This record gives sequence, structure tokens and C-alpha cells, in this order.
Amino acid sequence: MAFDAVVLLSGGLDSYTAAAMVQRQGFTLHALSVRYGQRHAIEMAAARAVAQSLGVARHVEIDVDLSAFGGSSLTGDTPVPKDRDIDRAEIPSTYVPARNTVFLSIALGWAEVLGARDLVIGVNARDYSGYPDCRPEFIEAFERLASVATAAGVNGASFTVHTPLIQMTKAEIITTGLSLGLDYGLTHSCYDPAPDGRPCRRCDSCVLRALGFAEAGAIDPVLAS
Amino acid sequence: MAFDAVVLLSGGLDSYTAAAMVQRQGFTLHALSVRYGQRHAIEMAAARAVAQSLGVARHVEIDVDLSAFGGSSLTGDTPVPKDRDIDRAEIPSTYVPARNTVFLSIALGWAEVLGARDLVIGVNARDYSGYPDCRPEFIEAFERLASVATAAGVNGASFTVHTPLIQMTKAEIITTGLSLGLDYGLTHSCYDPAPDGRPCRRCDSCVLRALGFAEAGAIDPVLAS
Repeated sequence: MAFDAVVLLSGGLDSYTAAAMVQRQGFTLHALSVRYGQRHAIEMAAARAVAQSLGVARHVEIDVDLSAFGGSSLTGDTPVPKDRDIDRAEIPSTYVPARNTVFLSIALGWAEVLGARDLVIGVNARDYSGYPDCRPEFIEAFERLASVATAAGVNGASFTVHTPLIQMTKAEIITTGLSLGLDYGLTHSCYDPAPDGRPCRRCDSCVLRALGFAEAGAIDPVLAS
Repeated sequence: MAFDAVVLLSGGLDSYTAAAMVQRQGFTLHALSVRYGQRHAIEMAAARAVAQSLGVARHVEIDVDLSAFGGSSLTGDTPVPKDRDIDRAEIPSTYVPARNTVFLSIALGWAEVLGARDLVIGVNARDYSGYPDCRPEFIEAFERLASVATAAGVNGASFTVHTPLIQMTKAEIITTGLSLGLDYGLTHSCYDPAPDGRPCRRCDSCVLRALGFAEAGAIDPVLAS
């Protein structure tokens, strides 16, 4: 029998690859995308395309307007940084406070309703070491929380948060995804795209994606088109 | 100097009392109310009245539509149970999976933006022992998570989740609130009110409230009016 897993799908290439890897293990995917006050509808369109391509059992979109609090260039009205030194050991202004905690909490609620014990998130501690909620210690603390936060946990169940990408480089992620036949032309990574959706090529997310494709020796279909 | 605290305000008497108790300790309150797919706007109107009465610095209302998943009589379309034996050791159908995890996660995001290290939630392990996310072990696990989930935590800060009601009976909560001069006529507790807002008097929340007022030797102003 197939087990159910709730996967957080952003429309980017990381969550797409993580979802596909867990799907290959035999899980039936239930995809969750959270609109948290992003400036752009493009991410959600990409998430829908990715969900359809994966053939998920269901794709739910939920609104949580974290922009009500400000505190991030991804949700507020400060500019997204460009041409930043991505090796600097600071937390960039694109950090959204408690974002992955909120996302995993909502995924946990859905998992409990489904009777699922598995969550999937495409976090990566290596290329995004600046974000605290992408680290293994965060994931472990969330698994502990899930076991005491839920009726299932009280009844003895434990939850697993799958993070297949957590120690991979962007190039390894891309190589893995391409070997699984994923169409990265469906994905969107840019933090600050042009009105027509074209990536800016200068934000952290664009720079890391370009470096990853270059190192993988592959062409980014989003830029090729 | 006053410290900031983010308090979850539902419009019920528990969160109102918890907020007032922490305010008396000298905290400046920032109130957060989450519309999670409740059937009734009455709770939000009560939350607004309570926030105003407390004189909070700011009151933010956020939508998170947990009814997308179903799984609860509070968000789904199954009936709210009436005349239930409230001493039964089962988790009632009014349980909303991962609700307090979602609420505290959003509060944590706001706290980090504010530079606050204190959260307040009016959970009660005694009268609501059926809900897993009202227990001390849940609160402790969330505090541990917060310290690894946030930029503030990475920089050495720790977060405190204040639960002043966690071991109190409903009568003790009411007695405490009345001694602080709280106006419980502003609050709303019923899970299934009539269209004009009157409480049903038969759901768990109405029954526990009535028992609490009776044991406290006080009149519930909501029923007296």
C-alpha cells in the first residue's frame, strides 16, 4: 500500500525535486502551497504546473498574509537585494520570520486530517545556510513538536519531515532532478521578476540557480526559452 | 522599560484573562487573532472588543483557512456535538488539527519582527485535557522549536510562551479575571451560536463556561443581558 505525504510546493526547483524524490520512494503526494504575501502570482502558477506535472492526489493553496507584520524584503516594501555576496555569513533581508515553521505547521494539520505521518520540505542547509529554518536542528525540533502537538502523536504516532535536499549542493539537486526527468522549465525561482515573469538574474535565488545549472553542466530551460 | 509580548486573542474569556494577567506583569501587548475558517464572525467581533478594552498596541487579524482540510466540527460541515459528557477522555470532534501549532507559529513570526521574545496563549490543560496542543509538553516543545527556528534564536535569544491559565480551573480563571476588573460581557465562547449571536448553552464551551461561573459564584454577563 502507498503511504500519503504532504509536500510543501513553492513553484521553485528545490521543492519540485524534493517532491519527486519522495514520490519515487512510493509515497502518494498531497501538495500544499502557501501564499504568504508574495509580491508575485508567478510562484503560484509555477506551483500549480509542478503539482500537475507530478500528478499529486490533491493540491491545496492556502493564504497566510505574513506581510501584515513586515520584516522581510520578500513580503514588505523594501527592495530585494541584488548582486549580494552570497557567501556572506549574514541572514539576508529576504528571510521571512518563522516562514518554514508556519508552513510546516499548516502541513501538519493537513497530514493529521489525512492520517499521513510524512511531511516533505525542500530545505537546503548548504546553499541557504543563512536561513535558520533550513537547518537540520530546526527539522528535528519540528518533528519533536509534531509528536506532542497532535492527537495522532498522543496516540503514539510519530511524524517524519523528509528533507532529501538538506545536504545537497544546488548542482547535485539539479543533476538529480534531471535524472528523474523533471521539467525545470515549469519552475520559478526569482525573488524579483519582471512584470512578464522573466527572472532578474541578480537576486540570490537567480544567482544560486545559475551557478547550480552551470556546475551541473546543464542549460536552464527558463533562460533558454 | 516595557517588554513586548504577542498574545493570541480568540474573543473567548480564557485568552482575555491570560492577556490581562501578562499585561499586569508589565508587558506591552500586541494582539493576534486568526480567522481559521470559523463559521461565525462573532468571535472576531469579540476579539476586537477585547483588544480595545485591553488597550493593546496593535491588533492584527490574519486569515488561515484550515477548513480547506476539514477534519473538525469547528471548521467542517459536521455538527458541533451537544450535551456531550465533558469528562470523557476522548478528543472531541471540535479539535482542529495542529491549530495551536499554526497560531503560535504565526505569533512567533510577528514576535521576531517586533523584537519580542514573549508569546501568550490562554491554553488550559485542566478543563480541556482532550486537546493535545493545550498541554505543558506541547508548550515546552514549541519553545525549543522557536529557539532554533528564528534568526533571533540563532543569535542566542530564547522565547517564552506564557500560559498563565494552564493549570487553573475555569472557576479560578473567572475569579482572577473579575478581580482584574475584566468585562466578560465582551467575550464569546459558544462553538455554535444562534444567528443573532446568542450562545447555544449545550456545546462543551458553553457547558464549561456555565460550570465555571457557577463555581465562581458569579453571573455570566453574556447570559444576563
